[in-house]
Amino acid sequence: MAIWLDQASEGFEERFSAFLTTKREVSDDVNDVVRAIIDDVRARGDAALADYSKRFDGIDFAEVPMRVSDAEIDAAMAEVDEEVMAALELAAARIEKHHARQMPKDDLYEDAIGVGLGSRWTAIDAVGLYVPGGTASYPSSVLMNAVPARVAGVPRIVMVVPASGGAINPTVLAAARIAGVREIYRIGGAQAVAALAYGTQSIAPVAKIVGPGNAYVAAAKRQVFGTVGIDMIAGPSEVLVIADANNDPDWLAADLLAQAEHDPGAQSILITNDAAIGKAVEAAVERQLKSLSRSETAAASWRDFGAVILVPSLEAAIPLANRIAAEHLELAVDDPDALMADVRNAGAIFVGRHTPEVIGDYVGGSNHVLPTARSARFSSGLSVLDFVKRTSILRLGPDQLRLLAPAAIALARSEGLDAHARSVAIRLNLEG
Amino acid sequence: MAIWLDQASEGFEERFSAFLTTKREVSDDVNDVVRAIIDDVRARGDAALADYSKRFDGIDFAEVPMRVSDAEIDAAMAEVDEEVMAALELAAARIEKHHARQMPKDDLYEDAIGVGLGSRWTAIDAVGLYVPGGTASYPSSVLMNAVPARVAGVPRIVMVVPASGGAINPTVLAAARIAGVREIYRIGGAQAVAALAYGTQSIAPVAKIVGPGNAYVAAAKRQVFGTVGIDMIAGPSEVLVIADANNDPDWLAADLLAQAEHDPGAQSILITNDAAIGKAVEAAVERQLKSLSRSETAAASWRDFGAVILVPSLEAAIPLANRIAAEHLELAVDDPDALMADVRNAGAIFVGRHTPEVIGDYVGGSNHVLPTARSARFSSGLSVLDFVKRTSILRLGPDQLRLLAPAAIALARSEGLDAHARSVAIRLNLEG
Repeated sequence: MAIWLDQASEGFEERFSAFLTTKREVSDDVNDVVRAIIDDVRARGDAALADYSKRFDGIDFAEVPMRVSDAEIDAAMAEVDEEVMAALELAAARIEKHHARQMPKDDLYEDAIGVGLGSRWTAIDAVGLYVPGGTASYPSSVLMNAVPARVAGVPRIVMVVPASGGAINPTVLAAARIAGVREIYRIGGAQAVAALAYGTQSIAPVAKIVGPGNAYVAAAKRQVFGTVGIDMIAGPSEVLVIADANNDPDWLAADLLAQAEHDPGAQSILITNDAAIGKAVEAAVERQLKSLSRSETAAASWRDFGAVILVPSLEAAIPLANRIAAEHLELAVDDPDALMADVRNAGAIFVGRHTPEVIGDYVGGSNHVLPTARSARFSSGLSVLDFVKRTSILRLGPDQLRLLAPAAIALARSEGLDAHARSVAIRLNLEG
Repeated sequence: MAIWLDQASEGFEERFSAFLTTKREVSDDVNDVVRAIIDDVRARGDAALADYSKRFDGIDFAEVPMRVSDAEIDAAMAEVDEEVMAALELAAARIEKHHARQMPKDDLYEDAIGVGLGSRWTAIDAVGLYVPGGTASYPSSVLMNAVPARVAGVPRIVMVVPASGGAINPTVLAAARIAGVREIYRIGGAQAVAALAYGTQSIAPVAKIVGPGNAYVAAAKRQVFGTVGIDMIAGPSEVLVIADANNDPDWLAADLLAQAEHDPGAQSILITNDAAIGKAVEAAVERQLKSLSRSETAAASWRDFGAVILVPSLEAAIPLANRIAAEHLELAVDDPDALMADVRNAGAIFVGRHTPEVIGDYVGGSNHVLPTARSARFSSGLSVLDFVKRTSILRLGPDQLRLLAPAAIALARSEGLDAHARSVAIRLNLEG
């Protein structure tokens, strides 16, 4: 049973505020362990990777090579079900097409006094992609991370994936191949992050590391940040469904459960102006839970973090939605555009009853790596922009320097920076 | 005396690699102190702010109000030298004009099968700007942080600045006024960061915190990251000057010293294909050092981290520059465009002999908040993009859902996510 919050009831603001700040993640403090692993990989390189892989993944690099061979990937491709293969290809093509529109354009221009200004975008030289092992090893995530990097023009994309006993999910390898990733190592955990950040004898370092992982991977990414770039550290997934009375409760229940089945810490929220639909959805959730293979996970998420919020009108839902700043926001209402105009904080919006969030997870074309834990208030989902960087450009001739020099010198002096003033003045034989 | 590295000499690669990874910053571990301060501000709010401000800044909020009044800002404006005032206004106008070009455009479109896709950009609701006290209190930094936020459309910009004994640099207040910042508190340190992130009785929380600060501020920003967004944690400043023989050594020396005077950890590097100009610049540095008010700082920086790198040709400088990935790169050569084409990693490029980096610090129009410590390999300078976030949008009708459903269901099943498959299938009366 999810909690119910009624905006018309007394004490709503207090209860809603408390709900907003509920922690859904227990983060173990693994920093010391991770620090030791990183130091060891920096010191011993491949030998450290071999030791950790033997210990944690039960794999001996003397028998199975650390790098996944092309032949292995070929074999994996052949193993994957034809329908799944076609689905991966469709997904990759749609992701590529959508993300190509995100490529920023250089902007080089001259202003009114002839100063050359500009922004030039270049791809990051090398990017590492972490792919978790086991059940969290999602081929769709490989596409969502690797395709935008390729679209950005990243010349080297390196994938790491832990391989318990040497085995890697063949669909993950197929997705990597489809996304154009050719350099894959069967390593995982903090040791893989360290190898990507600092390099070893056989792995050249990268400049940025992206992709999801467990607490050790997250801690390692935080620790190597600065030496390399990292993407966001994602928390458990969330969906917020805003629904009017004209919905099939079973559709909404299915959407709430699709989120809940990810993780006991996932969160599914329904906001509606119709108490009856709220009740009906809740009943449908209980009914559908019975036939899910991951029903235990989904039930725990719905019980601990699920919520039904009653509002007096659909318009009243939007300020709440902006405060929740959900990773995924579904607008299952007659006139979604009217509501959408005022949504400010959301990772992604799924417009109308025929856009279940799951389409965005796989084949919509948009990215499924989105800001969680209310961070849509200040950050965005993964895009081509995460794989490029901007160099700003400034170009003056003697005339422009003469025009701007007095102001620069005045500001440098007011900040007490003599050498700054001199660096301008000396070029014009002015007094610095 | 800076170190000399000669690419033609044996062992260059080894020495250059070591040079690249030299640490220029001692980061004190202040995490525990900072954590206690943040917890205290969360628990006691304004009362905690009052206590810390009394202890650290010698200021009593019973006598001087925490919030800076409009009258105080008016008074500050009147105090600032007219020339400096005009320079601030020129700088703000140029920064605004340049940054307005960076505003990303929404992209909403329908693809070939009628799926609505898109990216919608919105400004962050509220941004906090940290401004250091004392000598590091730079009015130019106020402009560089606040103007892009205003251009992005951020409705609420809050500035915090520690005020030893209650006093704030009037030029900083003038810069804030010019940049349109109206909400200013005289608080600093970790306590100010905590107040911005979590709010107190009199300060509403923000969604992102930007701006430079000391080790305590940096640690506090790292700790509140996730609850709010933060900008990069900047390290000491750097300049890399690539120069041919046709230069006035005094100009180059002045540029190297302009960087060195910032901080003993700052770094100034000259790469040249002409040993004579290298020697002449070094002599000019020693000569100019004598007449700088911050000569001690500049001398320490040049002695400990300065470098002259000799290359056999100017073209050979570029791969080294890409590895150094300097915050500031000056191209003081006859044909800067020929070199610029191959520069991939640099925060900003200053093109030609008449573009000293200092112009970019103040009045060029581009931003002076740039990636340090080689992070230009994976990140960019501050821009309007740091003050907006992107919501992705997906819209399907029944026809589009029917077309994409089979692939989504196949992928969901292959990932073992039943509820995902059902969320799509149930809408089409298919089997999930």
